[in-house]
Amino acid sequence: MATATLSIDLSALVENWRGLSAASASHPAAVVKADAYGLGLAPVAQRLAQAGARTFFVAVAEEGVALRAALGKGPTINVFSGHMDGDTPLIRDANLTPMINSVDQMLRHFEALPGHGFGIQLDTGMNRLGMEPAEWAAVRDVALDQSPTLVMSHLACADATDHPMNAQQLRSFQEMTHDIDAPRSLAATGGILLGPDYHFDMVRPGVGLYGGMPFADAVPVVQLHIPVIQIRDVAVGETVGYGNTWTARSPSRIATISAGYADGIIRAMGPQATLHAGSSAVPVVGRISMDMIGVDVTGLAHEPDTLELLGPHQTVDTVAAFADTIGYEILTSLGARYKRVYL
Amino acid sequence: MATATLSIDLSALVENWRGLSAASASHPAAVVKADAYGLGLAPVAQRLAQAGARTFFVAVAEEGVALRAALGKGPTINVFSGHMDGDTPLIRDANLTPMINSVDQMLRHFEALPGHGFGIQLDTGMNRLGMEPAEWAAVRDVALDQSPTLVMSHLACADATDHPMNAQQLRSFQEMTHDIDAPRSLAATGGILLGPDYHFDMVRPGVGLYGGMPFADAVPVVQLHIPVIQIRDVAVGETVGYGNTWTARSPSRIATISAGYADGIIRAMGPQATLHAGSSAVPVVGRISMDMIGVDVTGLAHEPDTLELLGPHQTVDTVAAFADTIGYEILTSLGARYKRVYL
Repeated sequence: MATATLSIDLSALVENWRGLSAASASHPAAVVKADAYGLGLAPVAQRLAQAGARTFFVAVAEEGVALRAALGKGPTINVFSGHMDGDTPLIRDANLTPMINSVDQMLRHFEALPGHGFGIQLDTGMNRLGMEPAEWAAVRDVALDQSPTLVMSHLACADATDHPMNAQQLRSFQEMTHDIDAPRSLAATGGILLGPDYHFDMVRPGVGLYGGMPFADAVPVVQLHIPVIQIRDVAVGETVGYGNTWTARSPSRIATISAGYADGIIRAMGPQATLHAGSSAVPVVGRISMDMIGVDVTGLAHEPDTLELLGPHQTVDTVAAFADTIGYEILTSLGARYKRVYL
Repeated sequence: MATATLSIDLSALVENWRGLSAASASHPAAVVKADAYGLGLAPVAQRLAQAGARTFFVAVAEEGVALRAALGKGPTINVFSGHMDGDTPLIRDANLTPMINSVDQMLRHFEALPGHGFGIQLDTGMNRLGMEPAEWAAVRDVALDQSPTLVMSHLACADATDHPMNAQQLRSFQEMTHDIDAPRSLAATGGILLGPDYHFDMVRPGVGLYGGMPFADAVPVVQLHIPVIQIRDVAVGETVGYGNTWTARSPSRIATISAGYADGIIRAMGPQATLHAGSSAVPVVGRISMDMIGVDVTGLAHEPDTLELLGPHQTVDTVAAFADTIGYEILTSLGARYKRVYL
């Protein structure tokens, strides 16, 4: 078998869910957008529901439809992108709750689905989603009269604890919502860790559930083991991979492993990346290709059958650093060819 | 609808197939690994089969099983990773042809599936897959006695026409195979364009079929249009997106579009990237987030409903340059959330 095995530890997921839930007195909701951050929407959401999650967030209505099929009737499914043109039948039939982002969306929702539950998303400075303060001031009485299930916003810099933007967005959110009765929410994983001022009535952990920073106490959820196709000796002066970018400076043993950028192993990682054979780090050599990667295994005492890209020795954040990116992107890029095993 | 639409022009695919087939007198085989470079294995392979393709290549046996289900009994399906431990039932039941990479794989194949077709992959200097010259010399008589259907190798630098590695690998391949009867293959898309010396009995176009360089005459196959969720005014000094990395220097109109790195839009593109509204280029502002991107649409006369990331104004290679990568990675990263429409 030349496909890699991605192991997803659902007990670790639940442990992270419990840890993040316990960090706040507010109602916890699970963010499972982007196929549960690449780990599989149905198995992840079903396990979180078993562990007590009653509210979920997805990015788009189509994800909400898939989630409703996985979870059945009970849980609340909130949609960050709100009520887009064309979404009405999905929102109605799957009983989704759109987080309304603009007056346009609000009018569409009230006209298409009068009486159907909705939330309101406010922009507190990120300038990405939600109503601006002036827009909100103009429509808030109309909106609140329809009893939104949630009024929420999102922090732009919560992963940096001491960024002044956090307090600024908190102040803005309080100014826009201090006198309303609807439940309020501001914090995702980073916001939970900023402390109780940020928790309001509902918190929305996402990346922390899946073992990623900024939740430093997260238990790792994923392991990725990639099969070795073959191992060869290369002599001094020989090159490895596309473009001859790596040249052997001493006699070397090179393993070719069966995964590449088509599996979400970002090509830019290139030679900064390592894998592990047990506790031994082994470096990538040459360019990452579409389906294969060369790895220098000269230092190993035994020929490995597989190498670890993610696991006890390399977290999603370790691997993210190889490509100068964030653990979130490593998770959501996890490829479709991997054999997914749920523990 | 907040999901983007990925249009795949199967007529353009066939035009590229015909163009690359006509560039050589050899038997053309289609490379459809990695879900046909992200465009959908079944629809792509079925259309190529209609257009006359009789031989296909995939990376791993699992892809071969899926391809056999899509194509039925006739076509030949070759597997680059060869005969791995555990592959035997897949190779047998789906009638796959492994490209044997090592003596270990050869022994496994002969023992597990005597009489079952196979090819041989030789390493001519890339040091990635295939038997080394000495290994090949030791087993070639045994191997050739079993009538391999193909003896092949792969070029490391074919995208750079004048790289001396090309002639060196050609010489090595000729030395290793000049006196054999089995059909031979060395060239993928880049190798086809290097000219007839590189064509041998079979050529293996891949990326060129899908509209990517180095096939400069390729017809674009994909278009990607991303819906706008909302558009807002931002004042001088306001920031957009995670980490406040973009600040408005003049009053601006910012569109939030509904796709992000979870859809394979590589996060590293960030502010180097543009999209298009008709023929007008519009720049990304701030960080690409998981499900959304901010775009400066100040210069547009009308509010767009969607923006083009791939299409007539931006090829896969244009977009690749935003992330300092290659078109291949843009194709194979195309996300699962897109609504795929085949033209």
